[in-house]
Amino acid sequence: MDFELAAGVPVLERTPHALRAMLEGLPQAWTDATEGPETWSPYIVLGHLIHGERTDWIPRAQIILAQGVDRRFTPYDRFAQFTESRGKSLSSLLNEFAMLRAENLATLAGWQLTDAQLSLEGEHPEFGPVTLRQLLATWVAHDLGHLVQVTRVMAKQYREAVGPWRAYLSVLA
Amino acid sequence: MDFELAAGVPVLERTPHALRAMLEGLPQAWTDATEGPETWSPYIVLGHLIHGERTDWIPRAQIILAQGVDRRFTPYDRFAQFTESRGKSLSSLLNEFAMLRAENLATLAGWQLTDAQLSLEGEHPEFGPVTLRQLLATWVAHDLGHLVQVTRVMAKQYREAVGPWRAYLSVLA
Repeated sequence: MDFELAAGVPVLERTPHALRAMLEGLPQAWTDATEGPETWSPYIVLGHLIHGERTDWIPRAQIILAQGVDRRFTPYDRFAQFTESRGKSLSSLLNEFAMLRAENLATLAGWQLTDAQLSLEGEHPEFGPVTLRQLLATWVAHDLGHLVQVTRVMAKQYREAVGPWRAYLSVLA
Repeated sequence: MDFELAAGVPVLERTPHALRAMLEGLPQAWTDATEGPETWSPYIVLGHLIHGERTDWIPRAQIILAQGVDRRFTPYDRFAQFTESRGKSLSSLLNEFAMLRAENLATLAGWQLTDAQLSLEGEHPEFGPVTLRQLLATWVAHDLGHLVQVTRVMAKQYREAVGPWRAYLSVLA
């Protein structure tokens, strides 16, 4: 599927609602569950998504749209949430993510991007030139990848509890 | 994590809401997307979950609880949705799933299951004796596994659109 704003934006709009529907009010044993040492819980993932709203997607899009001399993106801090989420409840993170995402999508809509603008380039600190179109597609795929992760982490908590059904549930592999 | 009703049921309650939050109103290109021939779209998965509500989880629990002479489960038809969903909109499937799930959880709650009942056994047509506790844990893990699938199928549609970011997004592998 090619990236198109009319198809990508509806997914971005839905992510905060999907996370809220899945996680709000769940026992903490689910939202703090991980896949083992150094892996992320749903709570940690949510903080990571919030950090992306603040520092990654829209700021990078702005760098591309400005077409300044230096179009190099600031590297994404993949661990910021370990300090930024500290002391916050899951519920407050869900609210924060929903608010930031709504603001960012309003900013995006306000730009009324043309095809030509979607083809403008910025510079990724590791792999070089990338287009605004690729950045926005990655925003969508990144959301979906973390929804995969959240649901996979939760599923794995029942790896033993399902008994012999484990052989049928590839997600528990 | 051991299976406990107080932790498992809240996940079962949330699945229809999570699917609605993710899928309702999305362009059909997302909800009909697959991972290739013989793989399932979000729309097909939803029909499969509905079939499970009608024929699998609660009917199997009833077989176990009855402790009759024949405790063998009817095999799950993994392809029923290809005929049963025919002609139905995604939105009507979301409603149907939510209604059936709510009814089934009301049935489950009404049983007020004891630990002793959760240890009762039925017979799986392929792998033999399984407990009610394992059946209910599998209901939860099966939901989560299909949420993983739905979000993974969607993510993969942008495998090319993300350009060089593909190397960073393990979900697109």
